[in-house]
Amino acid sequence: MEGRATASTPAALPYYVAFSQLLGLTLVAMTGAWLGLYRGGIAWESHLQFNVHPLCMAIGLIFLQGDALLVYRVFRNEAKRTTKVLHGLLHVFALIIALVGLVAVFDYHRKKGYADLYSLHSWCGILVFVLYFVQWLVGFSFFLFPGVSFSLRSRYRASHIFFGATIFLLSVGTALLGLKEALLFKLGAKYSLFEPEGVLGNVLGLLLACFGGVVLYILTRPDWKRPPQAEEQALSMDFKTLTEGDSPGSQ
Amino acid sequence: MEGRATASTPAALPYYVAFSQLLGLTLVAMTGAWLGLYRGGIAWESHLQFNVHPLCMAIGLIFLQGDALLVYRVFRNEAKRTTKVLHGLLHVFALIIALVGLVAVFDYHRKKGYADLYSLHSWCGILVFVLYFVQWLVGFSFFLFPGVSFSLRSRYRASHIFFGATIFLLSVGTALLGLKEALLFKLGAKYSLFEPEGVLGNVLGLLLACFGGVVLYILTRPDWKRPPQAEEQALSMDFKTLTEGDSPGSQ
Repeated sequence: MEGRATASTPAALPYYVAFSQLLGLTLVAMTGAWLGLYRGGIAWESHLQFNVHPLCMAIGLIFLQGDALLVYRVFRNEAKRTTKVLHGLLHVFALIIALVGLVAVFDYHRKKGYADLYSLHSWCGILVFVLYFVQWLVGFSFFLFPGVSFSLRSRYRASHIFFGATIFLLSVGTALLGLKEALLFKLGAKYSLFEPEGVLGNVLGLLLACFGGVVLYILTRPDWKRPPQAEEQALSMDFKTLTEGDSPGSQ
Repeated sequence: MEGRATASTPAALPYYVAFSQLLGLTLVAMTGAWLGLYRGGIAWESHLQFNVHPLCMAIGLIFLQGDALLVYRVFRNEAKRTTKVLHGLLHVFALIIALVGLVAVFDYHRKKGYADLYSLHSWCGILVFVLYFVQWLVGFSFFLFPGVSFSLRSRYRASHIFFGATIFLLSVGTALLGLKEALLFKLGAKYSLFEPEGVLGNVLGLLLACFGGVVLYILTRPDWKRPPQAEEQALSMDFKTLTEGDSPGSQ
């Protein structure tokens, strides 16, 4: 009975996950459409290099980062190690794609002779990237590197989850700032005339905020958290008996 | 023993609350300083009417809204009804101040003949204001209006907390967008020359993000949640026995 109970998936969870994926894919597609329709498309050489930046960030630091956070909710009945490796790998992909996006904008600024790191978007962006990299390194050291004690992992887990969610939300905020900057720099006073590019940009901004909200909802619903598997539960109970007061629980 | 245990306050909580207040007051003061130093100050008549908007939003929808969320952590040992009323009242103050800020910007636009509601900031802002008002109305109906059953309140509580935190975070994001808009409209290309106003604006933006992060941290730490008082606990246990499976617990 116990085994069957932990293997079940909450009825509404798949619908929320499907909705998050729909939002995520739409926002990536809309970023591509925006760059294609109004910004001349994407290329590494020429002035189109700048456009690599928003697309990479939408794919890496928004969609893939969000999905990496959802891994423990979606693959709730797989072995913990498999889920953990997938969580770490998705974050690695996100980090690499974000790095390409970062190189693109710095290289574009260098070629054009533009100043770097003067805007609020760039300050938040660098902060997000550094925090994301540090969070990955610390997460890897604690959860995937062998030899770290169960007790130490349990104590760090809550901080890892909080900072993971916060970095994701800061990524969404930074993307909104970048989008706004791109719209204002190009449209200027025409923004107030409800130009099609401005309206598309606003809808993209709302999609970004909605994706952030839905991921946060799935992540924070207590009854949707991954239940500990039978063998983890036994280990956790043994540990609880030994330490009393510590609650390693599920992730 | 039980009574004394629930009346205790976690050791680190007051420091985090103090830090959040320091951040909140600094960001309000810095908004005032920015408007005074670089935007000519504040007045209801003349072109200075616009400046009422950012100041009211920083006080109402950022500082007061954040503090309203922290009420259950700070006044953890007071009677629940007192805490509830304070939570509702702080939100009313925030709502009224935000309304003044909203009227200021619409009135300013009208006098100047500017278009309304074209930017991403304004779309997010209207969304935040409507959601905030609806959340307050629904919250009041469920938790302060007499006659709503304990069971219904318990079932709605988790959604109220999630949407409360989400609206607060969306308010912070909207403030960042507004700040960025104000900087770009005035500074334009000079923004990249590290003008003092641009740097001050960026620091203000980081302060806004930090305030959001610290409030979220205090709010989500499980061991900092308000413990149910002795009489609430008795009621909750009776209710648990009656319904089994529902967990009204603490807020």
